[in-house]
Amino acid sequence: MPLQSALDEMLPAIEAELKAVVLSPQNVAYPELRRMLAYHLGWEGEGAGPEAQGKRIRPALVLLCAQAAGQDWRRALPAAVAVELLHNFSLIHDDIQDHSELRRGRPTVWVKWGLAQAINAGDVLFSLAFLALHRLAETVSAQAGLQAYACLQRVCLRLTEGQYLDLDYETRPDVSLADYWPMIEGKTSALLGGCAELGALAAGASAKVREDFREYGIKLGLAYQALDDWLGIWGDAALTGKSTESDLVSKKKSLPVLYGLEKDAEFARRWQAGPVQAGDVSVLAEMLKKDGAEAFTLEQAARLTGESQAALQRAVPGAGAAAHLQELTALLLGRKS
Amino acid sequence: MPLQSALDEMLPAIEAELKAVVLSPQNVAYPELRRMLAYHLGWEGEGAGPEAQGKRIRPALVLLCAQAAGQDWRRALPAAVAVELLHNFSLIHDDIQDHSELRRGRPTVWVKWGLAQAINAGDVLFSLAFLALHRLAETVSAQAGLQAYACLQRVCLRLTEGQYLDLDYETRPDVSLADYWPMIEGKTSALLGGCAELGALAAGASAKVREDFREYGIKLGLAYQALDDWLGIWGDAALTGKSTESDLVSKKKSLPVLYGLEKDAEFARRWQAGPVQAGDVSVLAEMLKKDGAEAFTLEQAARLTGESQAALQRAVPGAGAAAHLQELTALLLGRKS
Repeated sequence: MPLQSALDEMLPAIEAELKAVVLSPQNVAYPELRRMLAYHLGWEGEGAGPEAQGKRIRPALVLLCAQAAGQDWRRALPAAVAVELLHNFSLIHDDIQDHSELRRGRPTVWVKWGLAQAINAGDVLFSLAFLALHRLAETVSAQAGLQAYACLQRVCLRLTEGQYLDLDYETRPDVSLADYWPMIEGKTSALLGGCAELGALAAGASAKVREDFREYGIKLGLAYQALDDWLGIWGDAALTGKSTESDLVSKKKSLPVLYGLEKDAEFARRWQAGPVQAGDVSVLAEMLKKDGAEAFTLEQAARLTGESQAALQRAVPGAGAAAHLQELTALLLGRKS
Repeated sequence: MPLQSALDEMLPAIEAELKAVVLSPQNVAYPELRRMLAYHLGWEGEGAGPEAQGKRIRPALVLLCAQAAGQDWRRALPAAVAVELLHNFSLIHDDIQDHSELRRGRPTVWVKWGLAQAINAGDVLFSLAFLALHRLAETVSAQAGLQAYACLQRVCLRLTEGQYLDLDYETRPDVSLADYWPMIEGKTSALLGGCAELGALAAGASAKVREDFREYGIKLGLAYQALDDWLGIWGDAALTGKSTESDLVSKKKSLPVLYGLEKDAEFARRWQAGPVQAGDVSVLAEMLKKDGAEAFTLEQAARLTGESQAALQRAVPGAGAAAHLQELTALLLGRKS
């Protein structure tokens, strides 16, 4: 069965379990509060639909890892839903912290309901993430439930630490290439590592195998982010499309930019000189390329992809055993936009 | 042993366990992030000390309930610390939502570190609350640990629902007396109910006894809030002290005010007419009294105190068995300022 067929079964199940948690009046008593959450999750309000819901990559990763580790994926659904809720809690707070007015093309929660209610809506999703996980004690075992809590807590802490670094870097002039990885490990990788670990945990895998799955997810996240940073400068939308989509215009301290700054050559001098306008994008991208930043970024992505695949191979030895995950990895890391 | 002697043992143990969780570089890796938390918890920075730390009533309640239910209180420390961290997460976010610039006489976290980092610092404490609870599986049992998670989640949800209502009421012109209780149950009582239930849970009490403890805490919280609302208008500081401390000046929709508005008599007409200045406070307080709001508020507090004590009696039958909790109740509900 190819990956898409598996996802065709899993994604509706994820959505149903998500709705069972978020839309239950027993969990969230007040209709307007449920409406905020349903809006953010893409189920209600203007622009609702698959586009607004996002790809649900993280919960799918949990289920695919549980399956690869030999478990009926349905039993891992509570963990899948927990990570998606945790991810969305962080998005609601992120949007406030970054003053982002749009998320997946729609006004963000704080724009629609104000800052105070948006902070609280994020807190509600945070609470619901832990609530959703509770059912794992039923679908798998009490021990797995407790271990899953420990795992989710560690992820929460790494996530919030990553956010601390990200906010801190925005105001610091002296961010170095070495500062990049801990921030990405917190903001992106910890949750993907948690997804893979929770999947293995739901499958009753040994501590060693859980650790291999976690490593797979963490490296997958780092590779994904390195490629995302590459796309932010050399991707189609960034270079030739809407110039506002270029990370250079937003002056994001991404991996290639930090590499270029450390090189302290042509790009660094231009970067320090002031704002980057839409018309400057292709020239700066070329400077960065000449300084070796594009090659470096793609090398890092390739290295991390390799390490991710090696960890998966250790977790699930034998050819084809983790075919869906291999396909997912290729999909995530082979994207061109 | 009187309550004070018990607290003299418990409070340092609470502080030590709190510090072990929050200040551990293994839990929070970045010194500046630890500094934000240590500042908020009253351990560091200008004005640090017992005043800035607050009374730690909630964790003490957990330990006293565990003790009353027959457990060595030390084994309940993870739960005690979890509720204190949860409480402080909500304070950090509250201060942002209410634009409060001072907390216990010191600048709030958002004033010192900015909005974005303050939201995140609250999120870190939220994560640490769940992390702190994990050790209960060791000090008591895996089953108690899982039940404690379920309890803490419910509390988180009620807390955030209460916050939703509180924020909603601020902008709604038609808040009624009936709207008051669900908001207070969420904002104040759910956590106190959770404290009492967690204490009983750590003691391995039956479901019935846990429920009685929870009821004790919830009613204690409601009575406490009713009295707090009374103090906000007829307390010494409100009436004769600094006029800014009167709930009438801040136009807080407290229990006596909502009663007065529902009476739709002299007080209601004055309230609707516009802002309340410092000089108007004693006149408005007198109007409210004439409309029966003071008597009503004190009646409600007395009724809830009675219900709280009855629940405690059911939870721990026999004279003197819950002497410390009786003394704590008297202390909390007998205060004059």
